[in-house]
Amino acid sequence: MDARLTIAYRGDRYAGWQRQDNAPTVQQLVEEALEDLVAEPVRTVGAGRTDAGVHARGQVVSFSLGRDWPPGALVHGTNSRLPGDVRVLAARSAVPGFDARRHALAKDYRYRLVPSPVLSPLEAPFAVRVEKDLDLAAMIRATRSLPGRHDLSAFANAGGSHRDPRRTVFRAEWRREGDGLVFRVVGDGFLRGTVRILVGTLLEVGRGRRDIGSVAELLSGGDRAVAGPTAPPQGLVLHRVFYPEDRGGPSLDRGLRAVW
Amino acid sequence: MDARLTIAYRGDRYAGWQRQDNAPTVQQLVEEALEDLVAEPVRTVGAGRTDAGVHARGQVVSFSLGRDWPPGALVHGTNSRLPGDVRVLAARSAVPGFDARRHALAKDYRYRLVPSPVLSPLEAPFAVRVEKDLDLAAMIRATRSLPGRHDLSAFANAGGSHRDPRRTVFRAEWRREGDGLVFRVVGDGFLRGTVRILVGTLLEVGRGRRDIGSVAELLSGGDRAVAGPTAPPQGLVLHRVFYPEDRGGPSLDRGLRAVW
Repeated sequence: MDARLTIAYRGDRYAGWQRQDNAPTVQQLVEEALEDLVAEPVRTVGAGRTDAGVHARGQVVSFSLGRDWPPGALVHGTNSRLPGDVRVLAARSAVPGFDARRHALAKDYRYRLVPSPVLSPLEAPFAVRVEKDLDLAAMIRATRSLPGRHDLSAFANAGGSHRDPRRTVFRAEWRREGDGLVFRVVGDGFLRGTVRILVGTLLEVGRGRRDIGSVAELLSGGDRAVAGPTAPPQGLVLHRVFYPEDRGGPSLDRGLRAVW
Repeated sequence: MDARLTIAYRGDRYAGWQRQDNAPTVQQLVEEALEDLVAEPVRTVGAGRTDAGVHARGQVVSFSLGRDWPPGALVHGTNSRLPGDVRVLAARSAVPGFDARRHALAKDYRYRLVPSPVLSPLEAPFAVRVEKDLDLAAMIRATRSLPGRHDLSAFANAGGSHRDPRRTVFRAEWRREGDGLVFRVVGDGFLRGTVRILVGTLLEVGRGRRDIGSVAELLSGGDRAVAGPTAPPQGLVLHRVFYPEDRGGPSLDRGLRAVW
């Protein structure tokens, strides 16, 4: 069977999703748990290659198995072989050939800031503290330039392998949630570090150290050195991944209706 | 000076707020940090006696010092002497004789449930998993009987010392927040375990194991054994405490306007 898992994890203890030699990764843990359960080799594909320290609420993982497994057995069998900071939330059979990365229509990332002199221990694992006097209105105006198709080269850290640096941002916005300020960005994909560099750049706007208009200029290609710094990983969560089959058809339009 | 701190903590590692012999408490840590900083004995009063494992986002603590201290020095001096799971968020001088417990107008508690077969590690420290098919409409109807002045004896665990078991609930409601379901209750005070027993009782209503009307009956006194079980501590947060001076006057009406 072709199968699909939805996985949540805290990134703190891991060198990211993608398997590496000599560093603990979430992908390695998930593959080892699956292999121990199903007693055959398993190669997984994750929708998003989250970096070290980045969290996921809705990472999607695809793989093939030599025989059928009931989804409930995959959930419970895998979770009993994983540490508590990685959980399989759901499993289902997928359409034949399903690839969590190539077939994703859109990814929804959220970055949480808390404007406060001291970060509460209830926020600390999943947020980054910022000063209270950010110019949020300026940040929101700069954010308006994000939706659309852009060359994101200025918002990409070294180490990614991107043949074409253009991606489409469907939605980008700031929301107040509780004591925090959440940057939400939905796109058909991002380059390595894009969301955290966007946050680092928008924070420079909020601090009055960068023109609002400079963000739009950076979106037509340009130099990584001219964009802002990479914001810390613990504020970022891969919130959800959208697929055509989730809405009953392969149309991008239909798939994205769920986002809005 | 009379002083007031706003404190946030994760309850996981502590036997609650209130100082005890032979068990680690948040009050003991805070008093020791303050005494080390100000080099005099300090006795604190906390607004809410949170139980073992219960969290706080806005616990308020009062105490007197022999001399004046700048609020910033109290915040940073205390935090540098506390473990990371207890943080002083703010300090200010208080009106002479200020008592965080006796002068509180209202306390706002929140209890977070996540209806899901598996609890995400991003939720786990601060939430409790419940089944997805709860009858939320029934729980909301039962919750409507809470506002008002009641004898809360049926919702009190042994070990509290309450001369008068009557308390006023100003507001009680359920809200969807992200993937979770949050029970918010604001009252002029609660007996020992009240909020968690309310949640345990309302969950019995949501599971169809208890009549909606039985909650109203329990609010006119009655037997602890007839109410539901005590819900686990990790879902509960002392969110905020309200004082007359926060709204510029001693009127309950004025103070409570902030709640609504």
